[in-house]
Amino acid sequence: MFASQLTRKIRTFTRSLTSISRHSNIRRFITMETNGEVITCKAAVARGPGEPLVVEEIKVDPPKKMEVRMKILYSSICHTDIDIWKGTNEAQRAFPRILGHEAAGIIESVGEGVTDLKKGDHVIPIFNGECGNCVYCKSEKTNLCETLRVNPMKSVMVNDGKCRFSTMDGKPIYHFLNTSTFSEYTVIDAGCAAKIDPDASLKKMSLLSCCISTGVGAAWNCANVQAGSTVAIFGLGALGLAVAEGSRVRGASTIIGVDINSEKFIKGKKMGVTDFINPKDVGTPVHEKIREMTGGGVDYSFECAGNVDVLRESFLSTHDGWGSTVLLGIHPNPRMLPLHPMELFDGRKIIGTVFGDFKGKSQLPHLAQPVHQRAPQKKCRRRRCTFRIDLVRDILLRLPVKSLLRFKCVSKSWLSLISNHKFAITHLNKTSKRSRRYGVIESKHCHRISVYSLDGMDHLVIFLQ
Amino acid sequence: MFASQLTRKIRTFTRSLTSISRHSNIRRFITMETNGEVITCKAAVARGPGEPLVVEEIKVDPPKKMEVRMKILYSSICHTDIDIWKGTNEAQRAFPRILGHEAAGIIESVGEGVTDLKKGDHVIPIFNGECGNCVYCKSEKTNLCETLRVNPMKSVMVNDGKCRFSTMDGKPIYHFLNTSTFSEYTVIDAGCAAKIDPDASLKKMSLLSCCISTGVGAAWNCANVQAGSTVAIFGLGALGLAVAEGSRVRGASTIIGVDINSEKFIKGKKMGVTDFINPKDVGTPVHEKIREMTGGGVDYSFECAGNVDVLRESFLSTHDGWGSTVLLGIHPNPRMLPLHPMELFDGRKIIGTVFGDFKGKSQLPHLAQPVHQRAPQKKCRRRRCTFRIDLVRDILLRLPVKSLLRFKCVSKSWLSLISNHKFAITHLNKTSKRSRRYGVIESKHCHRISVYSLDGMDHLVIFLQ
Repeated sequence: MFASQLTRKIRTFTRSLTSISRHSNIRRFITMETNGEVITCKAAVARGPGEPLVVEEIKVDPPKKMEVRMKILYSSICHTDIDIWKGTNEAQRAFPRILGHEAAGIIESVGEGVTDLKKGDHVIPIFNGECGNCVYCKSEKTNLCETLRVNPMKSVMVNDGKCRFSTMDGKPIYHFLNTSTFSEYTVIDAGCAAKIDPDASLKKMSLLSCCISTGVGAAWNCANVQAGSTVAIFGLGALGLAVAEGSRVRGASTIIGVDINSEKFIKGKKMGVTDFINPKDVGTPVHEKIREMTGGGVDYSFECAGNVDVLRESFLSTHDGWGSTVLLGIHPNPRMLPLHPMELFDGRKIIGTVFGDFKGKSQLPHLAQPVHQRAPQKKCRRRRCTFRIDLVRDILLRLPVKSLLRFKCVSKSWLSLISNHKFAITHLNKTSKRSRRYGVIESKHCHRISVYSLDGMDHLVIFLQ
Repeated sequence: MFASQLTRKIRTFTRSLTSISRHSNIRRFITMETNGEVITCKAAVARGPGEPLVVEEIKVDPPKKMEVRMKILYSSICHTDIDIWKGTNEAQRAFPRILGHEAAGIIESVGEGVTDLKKGDHVIPIFNGECGNCVYCKSEKTNLCETLRVNPMKSVMVNDGKCRFSTMDGKPIYHFLNTSTFSEYTVIDAGCAAKIDPDASLKKMSLLSCCISTGVGAAWNCANVQAGSTVAIFGLGALGLAVAEGSRVRGASTIIGVDINSEKFIKGKKMGVTDFINPKDVGTPVHEKIREMTGGGVDYSFECAGNVDVLRESFLSTHDGWGSTVLLGIHPNPRMLPLHPMELFDGRKIIGTVFGDFKGKSQLPHLAQPVHQRAPQKKCRRRRCTFRIDLVRDILLRLPVKSLLRFKCVSKSWLSLISNHKFAITHLNKTSKRSRRYGVIESKHCHRISVYSLDGMDHLVIFLQ
C-alpha cells in the first residue's frame, strides 16, 4: 500500500517534469542565466519513513568544486527508492530527503574544475559514479569508485559534507544515492553525470540510469553470456527484462523467465524470454523443473527478486561444474546467504554486480548512442556496412557459422580484439594507407566468439561474402 | 586424540608399505603373474566410526571392465581420511572401509577395455577421476567428471555397484573416495589412475594425489594468481603450503600466512610465505590487520582451514572491487556461508575448488614430470634454452617488464596461446622449415601475462635478449 502511494505520487511528479520538458523551450532554458545563483524549484520530498511525499518548493544551491547542477527532465522509479522511503534499513534513514536515481536531463551549470561537461549537455545521472582518478577507477577489474560508488548511507555531498538542497526556510534536505532525481533541479558530482549524444531520446535514456544498464551489463559484463547458452531469470521486472534483452542480443538459445505473475511472460517474450515458469504452477521446486528442461541446469541464472529463497533456487538451477548465478536484486532482509560452503565445490559460482559492471561515466555514453542495437544481417550481404566497434560483437554473434568476413579497421585496438584465439585469421594484409588494416576473418568458431565492449569509438567496415 | 591414534596407525602401516617398496625388487613384482587372480594382502581397515584401524589380511579381486588393480607403494594421510574415519557426517558412513586417497604405486593388472595403462606403469590414484568421455570431461570449464568425480558417499565400484575388497571370510569391505589407498593393493577405475613418468620419485609423487595439486592448482587455475599480486593463506597445513608454493612460482609479491600455530611460519617461509599472522597475537580481527598491511586487502585469499569463521575472515581480508577468496578446506560442519548477499556487491568473489581445478588424469602427468618447477632466469640470458611448454607461463612471469624474447615453436597450439591480446607481438615470421615459426614478443604487459596450462608436450625455445 505504501509503495503504491509513493508510486502514484512520483508518477504525478514525473509527469509534471515531462510536461515541463515538453512544453518549455529547451533552448530558452539554455540561454537562461542562473549560473551561480540559488534556484527555487519544485521537488518531491520524503519527510519520514513511509510518509507521503510532499511536492514543495525548495532551494537548490549552485554546484561547488567538481560538481554540476542539472535540470531533470525525466525521472523514473525503482524499488530501491521505495525501500529507502519505507526506511526498511534503519541505518540508511535520513529525512527529509529527495529520493530518485533513474533520470535524464540537461546540465544547467558546472562548478569549479569541471572541464568535461558544460551547460546544455545532455546527461544521465549515475548512482554509481566514476571519479576517474582513484585506484578503483584506474583498475579494469571493478566499477566501484573509491568516493562515488553506490552508497545508500551517504546523504551529503563529498566536497564539504553538506547538502545543496534546502527548504524555503533554510533547513537542509538530504541527498540520495549520489543523484536525488525527484526534483526539477539537482546537484551531483561531475563523476556521477554521463554525457550522452544530444540526439538520443532523453525519455528513453532515463532507464539507462539504473535497471537497463544493470540488467544488460549483468548478462554482458558479469556473466558474459555466450551464443547458444542457456539462461534463467528469476523476477521479470524491468531488471529481469533487461537481462533477457542482454542475453537475447548475445544469442542465448534458451531464456527461461521465472515469475509468480504469469502476465510478465507477455512482455518477457518481446525481450527474448523463450520459456516461462510460474513457481505457483509447478509441483516441484523451480530448480528441479529448470534442470529437467535444460538437461542438468542453465549456464547462467540471474536473481532479480531480492529474496534469499529465490536466490537459493536460482543458484541450484545452474549446471554443476560451470553454472554462474549473478545477483542483481537488493536484499534488505538480514538473512544470510542460504548456501553451505561445500555447495561451492559443485563448481557453481555466485557473483554480485553493481550497475552491470559498467563504468558509468565512461561506458554509458556508448550504450546510450541512438544506434540501433540490432545489427543488420542478410541486408548487408555483399554490401559495405559501417558499424560502431562496440556493436561488432553482436554482429559477429549473428553470423552463420563459417561465414567469411573481410574487414578494415581504423586502429590497432580492435584488431587485437578480433585476432584473439577465438577467431581464425586466414589472411591479413597491412597497408600504411591511413594506418588502416585489411584482412579476412573466418568465423568458424562463431558460436564461441566473445568480443568485449570497448570504450573507444572506432568504426569497423565489414563486407560479408 | 582420535586423530592422533589414526595417524599413528597409518604411519606404521605406510612405513610398512615403504619398506616393501624399498626392499622388494620392483622388477620381480612386474614379472610376477597375478593377473586375473584374487590377491591376498594387508590393509588398514576402518571397522567403525572412531574405532582403531585394524591391519589385517584381505582379499582384492581382479579389476573388471575399465578398472585397474594397483600396488600401493606409498600412501600419505589427509584430514578428509580422519573426518570420514570419525564419521563426522553420518550420511558418509560405510564400514568396514579402507580409507586413504593420497598415494603412488604401480599397475599390477588392468581390466577389459583399458588401453592407456598396462602392468608396471607408475601411477598416482586420483580421488577426482576423469572418464574422458562425459560432457563434463569434454568441457574446459570443469574438472568434475560425471561418474568419477569426488564423492565421499560412494563406497562401491561404478561398474557393478560391488566391492573389490573382502575379508578373508568373504564379507565386503567398502571403497573410499575412488581410491582406498591404505592397502597393499587396491582396485580403482582406470579414469582414476594418472600415469606418470617412471623416473619421477614415487615417494614424492604421493602428495600430488591430493594436497599439492589442490593447493598449487587453486593458485594457478582457480585464482589465477598474477605476478606482483598479494595473497593471504588461512591455515598453513600441507594444503596452505602448496598454495604458498603455487603463489610464489607465479611471482606474488606478498604471501601472508595465517595460522594459530606460529611454528608453521618456519616451513611457510621456505615455501614463499613472506609475512605471518597468528590470530592469537593480534588484538584486531585478522582481516583488519591484513587490510592494514596491504593497503585495503589482498588480491587473493585461500581458506584451507575448513572453518566458517575463518572463511569469513578470509573473505573480508580481500580487496573490495576485485578480491577473490578460494575455498579449499572441507567443511563438515552444517553451518551455512557466513555472508550476507549484499556483501557480494562489494566486488569480492568466493569460489570453491576441487583438486585445484586440475583434470587429474590428463594434467597431473605434466605436473609430476621431474622437470624442475623453477625456471632459469638470468642464467638463460643470451643463451638458448629449451623449456617444456607447460613451464612457459612461469618463465614469462619472471621476465623483467619490457624484456624482449625471440621464440621458436614447434606447433601452432602454443602460438595462439602466446599471441593472445595480453602480449604485443612486434614481429612474426613464418617459415615452412619443419613447420616452425619464429618471432619476437615484447612482453611489455608482462605483469598481466597469463598463459594457460597445456595438455600437449610441445617445447619452446626462448632466446632472451
